[in-house]
Amino acid sequence: MEENFKALEFIEGKLRLIDQRLLPGKLEYVTCSTAGEVTEAIRSMIVRGAPAIGGAAGYGVYLALLEAGDDITLFNKLSAELRKARPTAVNLMWAVDRVMETAQSSGYDKDKVLSEADAIVREDREMNHRLSKIGISVIRKGSRILTHCNAGALATCGWGTALGVIKEAHLSGLGIHVYADETRPLLQGARLTAWELTRAGIPSTLIPDSAAASLIRSGKIDCIILGADRITANGDIANKLGTFMLSVIAKEYGVPFYSAAPTSTIDFSMKEGKNIPIEERDPDEVRKPGGVLMAPADIDVYNPAFDVTPHQNITGIITEKGIIYPPFDMNIERIRNGETL
Amino acid sequence: MEENFKALEFIEGKLRLIDQRLLPGKLEYVTCSTAGEVTEAIRSMIVRGAPAIGGAAGYGVYLALLEAGDDITLFNKLSAELRKARPTAVNLMWAVDRVMETAQSSGYDKDKVLSEADAIVREDREMNHRLSKIGISVIRKGSRILTHCNAGALATCGWGTALGVIKEAHLSGLGIHVYADETRPLLQGARLTAWELTRAGIPSTLIPDSAAASLIRSGKIDCIILGADRITANGDIANKLGTFMLSVIAKEYGVPFYSAAPTSTIDFSMKEGKNIPIEERDPDEVRKPGGVLMAPADIDVYNPAFDVTPHQNITGIITEKGIIYPPFDMNIERIRNGETL
Repeated sequence: MEENFKALEFIEGKLRLIDQRLLPGKLEYVTCSTAGEVTEAIRSMIVRGAPAIGGAAGYGVYLALLEAGDDITLFNKLSAELRKARPTAVNLMWAVDRVMETAQSSGYDKDKVLSEADAIVREDREMNHRLSKIGISVIRKGSRILTHCNAGALATCGWGTALGVIKEAHLSGLGIHVYADETRPLLQGARLTAWELTRAGIPSTLIPDSAAASLIRSGKIDCIILGADRITANGDIANKLGTFMLSVIAKEYGVPFYSAAPTSTIDFSMKEGKNIPIEERDPDEVRKPGGVLMAPADIDVYNPAFDVTPHQNITGIITEKGIIYPPFDMNIERIRNGETL
Repeated sequence: MEENFKALEFIEGKLRLIDQRLLPGKLEYVTCSTAGEVTEAIRSMIVRGAPAIGGAAGYGVYLALLEAGDDITLFNKLSAELRKARPTAVNLMWAVDRVMETAQSSGYDKDKVLSEADAIVREDREMNHRLSKIGISVIRKGSRILTHCNAGALATCGWGTALGVIKEAHLSGLGIHVYADETRPLLQGARLTAWELTRAGIPSTLIPDSAAASLIRSGKIDCIILGADRITANGDIANKLGTFMLSVIAKEYGVPFYSAAPTSTIDFSMKEGKNIPIEERDPDEVRKPGGVLMAPADIDVYNPAFDVTPHQNITGIITEKGIIYPPFDMNIERIRNGETL
């Protein structure tokens, strides 16, 4: 059962994106005809979610090649701009590098570059289905599952990671109930996850981020499953702001804490989470919830988009190659070496 | 140095309240001429903050007496409605009981009842100044202080509790910096605390609630000071949703965690925090940040206004009678017996 919407789709030579800033009020699309437009769509979060950003960026590199023609310097420049549209999620760099390598190795063959961009999207969807089927092994019948931000079909090239596991559990008849953190400041939980859950008919409850701790303490959460924007070689993860806080509470009260992500999210070259660059975003995202000024207009704001959860707080990382359990460094190295766990 | 605004003031036989729902955009007043209007102002959070609710309720009892005249049954009914306008903060029940007792013992003498309501407000302001002077002993020079929700002049009958300590520290030249949690869903941190901090000229930064955990881990917070809506005999506290989460993170990373409240917030008759009734509020407070629908309109919502922090996570409780340290039960009993710590 596939969802009947696509966060991104390449149609007639253009990249069509759901404008995720307008959900759930409006389901509208934005069309990108140039690499610069894709860069801007990623930066402004028309498209967001690490795997979806990767998928969009692949097509961005293709559009860069169409624009640049024989001007390889321009192609490299446009691709480099795409690559740094947002700093934290590694799937963006991974996808740009992958399609650029195909471009170089194929002598800048447009068809081969487009095929590679298509492959990223196809493979991401397949990986998500695979990791979802693997992931439901951690969910018991009647589980009450907490998730944070949006790691669903909208955050990926289709189906979803954490929300993919959750949908798979629902379809398998496990009788789950989902608690969705609203996820301030941009409310991806309220706007996107709640929208996906409602469409999928999954029993669910929206909560303010601060309500999660009491629910966990009172035994009302059986497990936590959320996504990842970058996983380092030791198993630390960068994910949406608020993830780290949940991990501390979950550990304190013995609730299993899982991250679900395709292996394209692993940054094998980075040793530990403290090296991950954390994007800081516009203060007005905090000052203006719902677009309405709700704070003194000139108050200083600290608005990091992500935080880092140390591997010590993580029960397991659900990937399409199996669930990574501690010792994370050893098991991530096994994945790097092509093993399936 | 007093602030140049008053959350509540009794003028010409009427209770004038700042409509705190409109801040910081508009500084407007609502005038209550009847006990029922005071009840509704408390329920709808025109006035909020445990001590301010207590102060308003005292005048509400006086207005009930004016309305009821010789009809003691009506007086008792109006007062009982006031008493249950909100269930969690104990100051409300405490203030209603206190003024009703004066009414009964004075033979329903209107002047004596008004004096008693006035006394609550005057004493609250005095207690806040006293506890603020006591509280600054826990703040070191250059401290970066995290606070949650609003425990300032707006939350009290004047000056403030947690924010009173913070203002006192600032005025004492301690060179502090304040981090204010925005405090979803009603954003009392963004709307009220940031407004008070800005007006007082205190260097400060507004953050999403989920950003506190990373700041604490990275050593950027030297102490946490926030208010309390009810303190039980063992030192557990009910306070704004999100307080409990902060207490777990603070304990994990060794950051001192203080609650500041007048002793009128102590419910000596209640043994422990798990007995405190926790108010659940309208789902639309979560669905509509800034009044704008940001979630599916029909999504189920869990919206508790408060949570309970166990005394094991609390470093100390700052009161006008001294700082209560562990063992909390023994030291709270000493306060009950009229001792100063």
